[in-house]
Amino acid sequence: MYRTVSHDGISDDVAVEEPLEIRVDGSPLAITMRTPGNDEELALGFLLGEGLIDGVREASLPEDLAANTIEVAGPLLKDPGTRSFYTSSSCGVCGKGALEEVAVDTPPAGEGPVVARALLAELPERLRQPAFELTGGLHATGLFDAAGELMVAREDVGRHNAMDKVIGRALLDGLVPLNGRALCVSGRLSFELVQKAAVAGCPILVGVGAPSSLAIDLASDRGMTLCGFARRGEMNVYCGEERVG
Amino acid sequence: MYRTVSHDGISDDVAVEEPLEIRVDGSPLAITMRTPGNDEELALGFLLGEGLIDGVREASLPEDLAANTIEVAGPLLKDPGTRSFYTSSSCGVCGKGALEEVAVDTPPAGEGPVVARALLAELPERLRQPAFELTGGLHATGLFDAAGELMVAREDVGRHNAMDKVIGRALLDGLVPLNGRALCVSGRLSFELVQKAAVAGCPILVGVGAPSSLAIDLASDRGMTLCGFARRGEMNVYCGEERVG
Repeated sequence: MYRTVSHDGISDDVAVEEPLEIRVDGSPLAITMRTPGNDEELALGFLLGEGLIDGVREASLPEDLAANTIEVAGPLLKDPGTRSFYTSSSCGVCGKGALEEVAVDTPPAGEGPVVARALLAELPERLRQPAFELTGGLHATGLFDAAGELMVAREDVGRHNAMDKVIGRALLDGLVPLNGRALCVSGRLSFELVQKAAVAGCPILVGVGAPSSLAIDLASDRGMTLCGFARRGEMNVYCGEERVG
Repeated sequence: MYRTVSHDGISDDVAVEEPLEIRVDGSPLAITMRTPGNDEELALGFLLGEGLIDGVREASLPEDLAANTIEVAGPLLKDPGTRSFYTSSSCGVCGKGALEEVAVDTPPAGEGPVVARALLAELPERLRQPAFELTGGLHATGLFDAAGELMVAREDVGRHNAMDKVIGRALLDGLVPLNGRALCVSGRLSFELVQKAAVAGCPILVGVGAPSSLAIDLASDRGMTLCGFARRGEMNVYCGEERVG
């Protein structure tokens, strides 16, 4: 996950970033720039978040890991090949054929859990402890139970990848939908991170950073609880206050 | 750029995030989640960074801005339609057909300029001053001349968008290639941000955050100067030390 480089006469660690090509039944589907490791989780979490799978699929890595590919067995729930648009390299939702298609269908969040405000605001600290961040270059996502116990944590150069890996892991462990859980991210709260949490059925999303307008809109629409600026025991609750005890 | 929301019994500003569909000659090409405003710059900067244009194109917004589309006049330098892959929603390079295609062809950086180390390390502060960040939810990119004077600054919920807007503005102003300039970003230094700077011909890229391994590799390969962790007058120089005086 780290590579040692020289700069200014000293040695230092930087986060590794490499492309991963996700292939389905032999056809290339997407390339993402990610930190190598947990590629099966990343691929499955990504496909789940895009509404292309709703359960575990077999995923296999090539013998030569440097090939940076992963093969996932289909079939997919819908045909992504019908969209032939060039893609945005921007951070966010891209390559969908019409604005209304930005949104993946997701059910409303289930009721509960109710978690103490102080505990929710503490999730970033609980996430930080196991994630030994040496480089300053990684984003983290953690999955917590309603008692605030960390279940899964993943780091990645891409914040979407970190969440995809956590959700992919949860999918492999039979934990999806994530009723009664909370996700916590180390950065800002974008539309797409809310959507990934919503698709996975997670009712609570906490972030260290700020939410965007559309992130609040989506979380509110789906009945989720969205908390931002969770730092030093304080946080803002943008919607879904009924789960904050 | 901001919207006022209520949370925890108070009013607060959050950064606006909305999709923008970039259309070329009537066909949808990409959708990006961006902060509205400067959409022409965003579209042109994006197309330049993808190697699809090498000069200004006519861009027009619809009468109804809420449609969130922008129309760019072609032709493009290459046909993006030949790539029919579904796209990654992850932050990074996506939707390209093979790993070797992640890279856009860029010339090596030109010689110079040489800028004092203390001045380069101060660019984030100089960027921060005009960018009145109210929400905590925006990324910023600034274009500076060799004397450290800010030429263009843009903010966006997406860090790639902020750079696309700055480069698009520079393109419209006849400043590309950005010989003798420096770009400064408010966050981390990914492969793709380095690539966007490289395609625009900018020899120096400074970031407040950490670089990834591939960001260093690309900058080094193209003979660029890459500086990270630029904070409080300190910074690391990962490659291209000959431009740091």
